[in-house]
Amino acid sequence: MTEHSLWRFSRALHRAINERQPADLEALLDEEVDWAIYGPIDMYPFFGSRRGKAAVMEVIRQIADNFRVHRFDRESIMLGVDSAASMMRYSLTALDSNKPISLRIAHFAQFKAGRLTNLRVLVDTFDLVEQTVGYPIHLPRMAV
Amino acid sequence: MTEHSLWRFSRALHRAINERQPADLEALLDEEVDWAIYGPIDMYPFFGSRRGKAAVMEVIRQIADNFRVHRFDRESIMLGVDSAASMMRYSLTALDSNKPISLRIAHFAQFKAGRLTNLRVLVDTFDLVEQTVGYPIHLPRMAV
Repeated sequence: MTEHSLWRFSRALHRAINERQPADLEALLDEEVDWAIYGPIDMYPFFGSRRGKAAVMEVIRQIADNFRVHRFDRESIMLGVDSAASMMRYSLTALDSNKPISLRIAHFAQFKAGRLTNLRVLVDTFDLVEQTVGYPIHLPRMAV
Repeated sequence: MTEHSLWRFSRALHRAINERQPADLEALLDEEVDWAIYGPIDMYPFFGSRRGKAAVMEVIRQIADNFRVHRFDRESIMLGVDSAASMMRYSLTALDSNKPISLRIAHFAQFKAGRLTNLRVLVDTFDLVEQTVGYPIHLPRMAV
């Protein structure tokens, strides 16, 4: 039984971010990879949609310039033959401020021949924004 | 081949919200269902963690009091024997203001004997907050 593509991808991703060693990750991206992290692109320019290996590697470089991953816990996971989805909790450090950031994300990934062809990431963005600016944003109570 | 529990749950959920007919949904919840929608509970009190059928039905009542579902598209989906995960795009109307709200969510669900035992929902919360308050929230650009 071979290892699921997700595990290799996950190791390579964290190595690219924390050790700034992107070669493993680059080898695991399809040339035409379809990539999106949904979130406020005004605040974090590396959010948004990308197409192709070079564009995604630039996103990874920007993430590596801004964050270090301390730990992550996979709270939910589903694995298919060539697909995977997880809900994860990340503990990060923002490198410019040295502030800890705790973040929940969900991802849906598709692989082909071991390479990532499609990734969709949803982030608990309001929580991220508050932690990043460092103060609570006042919200009216909307629901009855 | 029997229908996956997700489809029955999804129909019952939307019926409970849009037609305020919660009986089908109630029958599909495990007595001890473990439920969480991650998001700003100051703004929407029905976000957060709940345990048990009664607490979840109260959440559904509050959602039905505040929103109507116009349409939803499942952008990604994974189905296991007793589990399911999807990334979805919802078009809602906020009933108090009659404002349209477009929202992306990810959910991970577990079923047992056709009943929901565990649900985790992640919402693109910053996008939701901006649409709800009705004006853009100024964000500093944080990444280098």
